[in-house]
Amino acid sequence: MHSDELVLLPLGGAGEIGMNFNAYGFGPPDERKWIVVDCGVLFGRETDTPGVDIIMPDIRFLEERSEDVLGIVLTHAHEDHIGAIGYLWPQLQCPMYATPFTARLMEDKLAEAGLQDRVKTRVVPLGGRITLGPFDIEFHSITHSIPEPNALVIRTPLGTVMHTGDWKLDPDPLIGEATDEAAFRKIGDEGVLAMVCDSTNALVQGHSGSEGDVKKGLTELIGTLKGKVAVTGFASNLARLQSVAEAAQVHGRKVALVGRSMHRITGAARETGYLDDFPSLIGEDEAAQLPDNRVLYLCTGSQGEPRAALARIARGDHPTVQLGEGDAVIFSSRIIPGNDIAIHELHNQLSALGVEVLTVEDHFVHVSGHPCRDELSEMYRWVRPQIAVPVHGELRHMSEHARLARSLQIPQAVVVQNGDMLRLAPGRAMVIDEVPAGRVYMDGRVMTEADAGLTRHRRAMAFAGFIGITLALDGKSRIAGEPSFFFEGIPADVQEPVRDAVAATVKRHNPKRADEEDLKEQIRRAGRRAANDAWGKKPVTRVEILWV
Amino acid sequence: MHSDELVLLPLGGAGEIGMNFNAYGFGPPDERKWIVVDCGVLFGRETDTPGVDIIMPDIRFLEERSEDVLGIVLTHAHEDHIGAIGYLWPQLQCPMYATPFTARLMEDKLAEAGLQDRVKTRVVPLGGRITLGPFDIEFHSITHSIPEPNALVIRTPLGTVMHTGDWKLDPDPLIGEATDEAAFRKIGDEGVLAMVCDSTNALVQGHSGSEGDVKKGLTELIGTLKGKVAVTGFASNLARLQSVAEAAQVHGRKVALVGRSMHRITGAARETGYLDDFPSLIGEDEAAQLPDNRVLYLCTGSQGEPRAALARIARGDHPTVQLGEGDAVIFSSRIIPGNDIAIHELHNQLSALGVEVLTVEDHFVHVSGHPCRDELSEMYRWVRPQIAVPVHGELRHMSEHARLARSLQIPQAVVVQNGDMLRLAPGRAMVIDEVPAGRVYMDGRVMTEADAGLTRHRRAMAFAGFIGITLALDGKSRIAGEPSFFFEGIPADVQEPVRDAVAATVKRHNPKRADEEDLKEQIRRAGRRAANDAWGKKPVTRVEILWV
Repeated sequence: MHSDELVLLPLGGAGEIGMNFNAYGFGPPDERKWIVVDCGVLFGRETDTPGVDIIMPDIRFLEERSEDVLGIVLTHAHEDHIGAIGYLWPQLQCPMYATPFTARLMEDKLAEAGLQDRVKTRVVPLGGRITLGPFDIEFHSITHSIPEPNALVIRTPLGTVMHTGDWKLDPDPLIGEATDEAAFRKIGDEGVLAMVCDSTNALVQGHSGSEGDVKKGLTELIGTLKGKVAVTGFASNLARLQSVAEAAQVHGRKVALVGRSMHRITGAARETGYLDDFPSLIGEDEAAQLPDNRVLYLCTGSQGEPRAALARIARGDHPTVQLGEGDAVIFSSRIIPGNDIAIHELHNQLSALGVEVLTVEDHFVHVSGHPCRDELSEMYRWVRPQIAVPVHGELRHMSEHARLARSLQIPQAVVVQNGDMLRLAPGRAMVIDEVPAGRVYMDGRVMTEADAGLTRHRRAMAFAGFIGITLALDGKSRIAGEPSFFFEGIPADVQEPVRDAVAATVKRHNPKRADEEDLKEQIRRAGRRAANDAWGKKPVTRVEILWV
Repeated sequence: MHSDELVLLPLGGAGEIGMNFNAYGFGPPDERKWIVVDCGVLFGRETDTPGVDIIMPDIRFLEERSEDVLGIVLTHAHEDHIGAIGYLWPQLQCPMYATPFTARLMEDKLAEAGLQDRVKTRVVPLGGRITLGPFDIEFHSITHSIPEPNALVIRTPLGTVMHTGDWKLDPDPLIGEATDEAAFRKIGDEGVLAMVCDSTNALVQGHSGSEGDVKKGLTELIGTLKGKVAVTGFASNLARLQSVAEAAQVHGRKVALVGRSMHRITGAARETGYLDDFPSLIGEDEAAQLPDNRVLYLCTGSQGEPRAALARIARGDHPTVQLGEGDAVIFSSRIIPGNDIAIHELHNQLSALGVEVLTVEDHFVHVSGHPCRDELSEMYRWVRPQIAVPVHGELRHMSEHARLARSLQIPQAVVVQNGDMLRLAPGRAMVIDEVPAGRVYMDGRVMTEADAGLTRHRRAMAFAGFIGITLALDGKSRIAGEPSFFFEGIPADVQEPVRDAVAATVKRHNPKRADEEDLKEQIRRAGRRAANDAWGKKPVTRVEILWV
């Protein structure tokens, strides 16, 4: 008989900032019970995954053991922590646990997927505690850039894990309480086996700063502006919305929300008891009637998303909001990697309208929601785990996080990647298995495996176009008519040489010694070679036979 | 009879940082003589222009007047200033002028294009002066991130233009002299009509910093490292290479160059009298024999270029250079917009090898070669032009640059875009014409017009794949055999509904009332609609008829 083990199995987030998905297992290998912490998405990028909006972890390992998955626990409501629920829950079919605001947004996700009646959800109060089999899970409020971020204290018979979720140490978070140092120290005093911790800003010196200070910065900046003002940022950062709205009020401006997610998130917040003291809002139409210096728009679209409110305003095709000479847009946000070109293009469009663009480069209008090195150090001093397990980062973040933890005298710091099964106890932490892990895509409405190669194939066509050649053959393998061509994304000058090369190959065809596969391959190669000779690039080239 | 005018016509660079190409015209509209300043490329990006390596200005306007183009004058040897010569010179066929180092690299470009015997080139000494028709052009040495940057003082009967080229104010440039303030003030005293000036860092406060300080930073940092060290950056920044090599020497390390452009540029530099005091180099093979703490590699690949030396080292497939645990890579460079993902992936690969990645985020190992706001202000105070014309920037940079110039009491600041013909004199500066402008691509070896739509078409396929349907028809318009399909980048589940929809449409075909174009369009629509219904995306869909 095998004895109990406590293992961590990240299936997402250990290798990327996004699609967070961590499983904890307890028990002997053949009778292990599992819980899942977070179930998020990663957003696709045109460069890597054209046509794919959403990337999620491949959780087949847990799907095969779904009867032993006791529940999904959510730390907070950001998309990279809850966005995959609607897609992946059907593979696990287990109860879900979250605090009220998170649960409210989770319900939206489930409803979108038509799962609202099938999923057993339990709303956990702030500071609440639940038991799932061998796991005793306590929710500890922390600070981040959304209401109700929770660190999870997961107690098991083999030791306690502090799963931080996303966090920072904000002395003045505006919404929610500042992090309770004493509570974290007390957990440290209890003895913590492992801390599984946010690595996002492990490369950034110092401290992430406070929402309270951003509020001062915004208030000051907005006071200097004379025309219309639009502020863009993430709708889920309610503290930021509150800061902007109060800053507007100070300077006699009324606030209008612009963009669907602004309305959606503030609605959910009100339903769960937030934003009671939010300054009153006006509609977009009413705002359009006010003098320029009496209005402030809170807009979606800080990442340059082409269909969001700000992009439409910048293109001049928003139905109610027009900005021009003398107006200003404040980007109360950072540039998420990969979005720089789109965001700068948005800045250019706004500049072309005469709008002043104000960003964190020159003004104190944003702070990160993740712990910088000083905050990480502080947390390690409070919790004093035996083992540091960096997650929520690319390898470069996790490696540096591990280096930092070691420098803080944490006995063991282990860098794991998605699919590594890390035994936390008993004994020294070590990777004891590698399980199938990877990514699945929402490609349109179809879920595809990343390694199905569809996006790779499409990228190849984006690079060098496509040539399709159809050849009609009769029952005796004689060629009928002339070959037919598709030239897609191929310069005109390249087409004639390809036609000629194919014609020459077809001419050599001997129906008596016909091998169609061989003929197809000869034509394919001749066409592709001719294209390469004329163009210096090799198009994706395929040949089909049409039997007549 | 019309009277003389002095005009500026940017065909590249006024709207992007790259493909710099400015023409100056003098004379009455119908007898205008032209000079061209710089002839550069912009590098293509997979997102916008998949399969396109190089983007250049569309110079058809000048091509039609090539007999009146008196010469191309190059300010310095960066690719975004000289890279298009081999492609665009044949359209202008005029003499070329450059200082020795620039001329040496220009000759490489011409030789690559097989033009070396056709082009009349004249090497201008530093500080030299040339006359091209009505233009008297004086080369004024300035500082930048490459040897021999020149500002051009272009004197005409209607006034003097200061064309800055790329510049900064580096008090300790290491190679070449610091900028001669008195010389620039003296030109200002002469009276300058217009300054056409670098906008790259117009959004950045303060001063760009000095190569001399980078040298100190690198020397200090390299002193802390114990294993092998690789430093990556732009080969054309000879001062930086010199700094790295001297820092290595201080700490007892020998330097090996790794990557073709390192050898190419240092070779060109030696031939033109630079690098005489460069520490002696060793070969890669010799370096591999030395103890780890005695070697330093100077590598290409700071922008994550997949075929450059550093990418190969990070993938573990470089023939002579291996890095691992205990080694370090210093990125003595910034992240060029659009390259962040590739560079961070390189960091991740190096982290996976255990290599420490050191960047400008935490260490003083890089400064920009372009003027920040304090430097711009200083230059405006020296030169005191009547008109400020920001170039070398996106709209956001040029707009802010113009705002800064106005704040410095420059009487007129004009933001122009490629193709705007700006009359500088006589009278107030104004755009008097818009000429055809745009971009051409090197798509493989074929030069294509940007608006030919090839890359747009390929991007559409990258997003939603391609469906090609071939239908065989006999002489009586009767369908022969079954339609043949290409499904490229389309999920398997989507293919069956498309086949079914096409089959249903084909079934309704009446050969007696055949209109082939109509049939093709019906099939195309049916296939595309079926794909959209199954997938939520609309593939590029085409139909061809094969007559048998």
